[in-house]
Amino acid sequence: MAKKRIVIALGGNALQKNGEVSAAAQKAVAKKVGELIAKLSSRFDIVIAHGNGPQVGNILIHEEQAASENAPAMPLETAVAMSQGQIGYWLAQSLLNAFAKMGKNKKVATVITQVEVDKNDPAFKNPSKPVGQFYSEKEAKKLAKEKGWVVKEDAGRGWRRVVPSPKPKGIIEKREIIDLIKSGTIVIAAGGGGVPVYRTKILHTLKGVDAVIDKDFAAEKLAEMIKADLFLSVTAVDYAYINFGKPDQLALKRITEKEAEYYIKQGFFKPGSMLPKILATTEFAKKGKIGVICSLDNLEKALKLESGTIIVK
Amino acid sequence: MAKKRIVIALGGNALQKNGEVSAAAQKAVAKKVGELIAKLSSRFDIVIAHGNGPQVGNILIHEEQAASENAPAMPLETAVAMSQGQIGYWLAQSLLNAFAKMGKNKKVATVITQVEVDKNDPAFKNPSKPVGQFYSEKEAKKLAKEKGWVVKEDAGRGWRRVVPSPKPKGIIEKREIIDLIKSGTIVIAAGGGGVPVYRTKILHTLKGVDAVIDKDFAAEKLAEMIKADLFLSVTAVDYAYINFGKPDQLALKRITEKEAEYYIKQGFFKPGSMLPKILATTEFAKKGKIGVICSLDNLEKALKLESGTIIVK
Repeated sequence: MAKKRIVIALGGNALQKNGEVSAAAQKAVAKKVGELIAKLSSRFDIVIAHGNGPQVGNILIHEEQAASENAPAMPLETAVAMSQGQIGYWLAQSLLNAFAKMGKNKKVATVITQVEVDKNDPAFKNPSKPVGQFYSEKEAKKLAKEKGWVVKEDAGRGWRRVVPSPKPKGIIEKREIIDLIKSGTIVIAAGGGGVPVYRTKILHTLKGVDAVIDKDFAAEKLAEMIKADLFLSVTAVDYAYINFGKPDQLALKRITEKEAEYYIKQGFFKPGSMLPKILATTEFAKKGKIGVICSLDNLEKALKLESGTIIVK
Repeated sequence: MAKKRIVIALGGNALQKNGEVSAAAQKAVAKKVGELIAKLSSRFDIVIAHGNGPQVGNILIHEEQAASENAPAMPLETAVAMSQGQIGYWLAQSLLNAFAKMGKNKKVATVITQVEVDKNDPAFKNPSKPVGQFYSEKEAKKLAKEKGWVVKEDAGRGWRRVVPSPKPKGIIEKREIIDLIKSGTIVIAAGGGGVPVYRTKILHTLKGVDAVIDKDFAAEKLAEMIKADLFLSVTAVDYAYINFGKPDQLALKRITEKEAEYYIKQGFFKPGSMLPKILATTEFAKKGKIGVICSLDNLEKALKLESGTIIVK
């Protein structure tokens, strides 16, 4: 019997524990992630997508602060590709090492992934996602003028560049990822939501654009396109909750997409945090598949549908 | 008939023309590279390896200059993975765009690649490869103390960190790369000589190490391991020369590995420049295959063995 195909979307902070941001600390977390996911490989064909918020933030800060004529800053779209290399390397090595300890010789590959967006996505008219470092108002406005950035004040903490967060339309490397899965390889793909690209009008060539695609939306799109059976959004909490953090908070166990939509409308989920996860998993459930929100520790149980928020059609 | 399998090693400066280092300038060069290589895909199965000298240098300068507690510098091995993501993205997009213009729908994938080295390689006792920015003697010695770096004066231009340049022993993602080739995908792999890793003694797990593997040696090892028919080292000149730059300079056309070895012994080739290319192509010729040194413009002719330095057994 063919293995079930799953896409695991790891949260952007999934590689950082206790705010430790050094490479050594992040690799130590990756090691645990690798060990947990390696255990699943005998039963599932696995694709791992991951966030890159803290890592690409780190890259952007370095690129912006130390840019010079001889060593210019790379654009955001290229920085996303850099973060895919960085995190993909850490995760692939962790998985291979987990397999080495298990005496297994499983294949693992990180594929640099471009994700197509629509140049007419309304997000391009309303950049909303803050990226990179904080600036004073004066510096920010100077940079906006020099570089064509849109800058905004961020909740009294200073000024930052904001970029569009368009919806993913397609995964450029979809066929290559499917080929690898079919050959028995665990694939790490669509890191950081993918490098955002759009197709030019006449020649249909790809062009990178400075934007950030939500990693849960990109991972869900990938799960759809590779016809995954399950899509799991792995986060810091065990369930999606209604009334989260209040005395009457309630963990959502097994819900239908209609129930999920009702809770979404009620405003129970925080934008930029649980909201994209519940939106993405609900979208996947609408296709007749199963969407799951769970913690890393409960991943194995969640795959048996015994833990996490399970969303079905 | 099965297509011939080729590995093309692009020089570290292959993406930089006239010293232009911006992302836009490098992408413009990548566009040309993509168009030249795309034309070959109907006749050859293609793997592209590439250098990363200027790009990883750029990353290291930013990482070192702007490092802080909250945004620490990534180690060299991770920076290599970042540069693989960066350059791989540019090359893959260029190839896909060249195919789009040709009305073809060819697959292309960048695979983040780890390359195994021997922890007992003598290079680890004699770090020799300068990386990152220049420092004053005082700064350099302070950093050496703080970070355990080895630093050296670089030809009167200042002090730099030097790292080991061990020989590649194997390509960790070899099987994944072969699977992709077999499925009809152009693969970009072993960028920057690969992320250097060694195997630990007891568990045989992989561990990254701050070193730089010569990209021609890594590309040749990759060519061997995937049983390529031709290995091409693409550089700025049309041939390898003896007495290069002198009035009696002589372009080497078709030579045997024995002749190549004779010229190497005579000291005709510059270390860090033509020497690794001639060593790598000669090594490949020793296996009974064909090694070629050529310029990008002559790539097509070189594949017909009508241009470039052709090295045979």
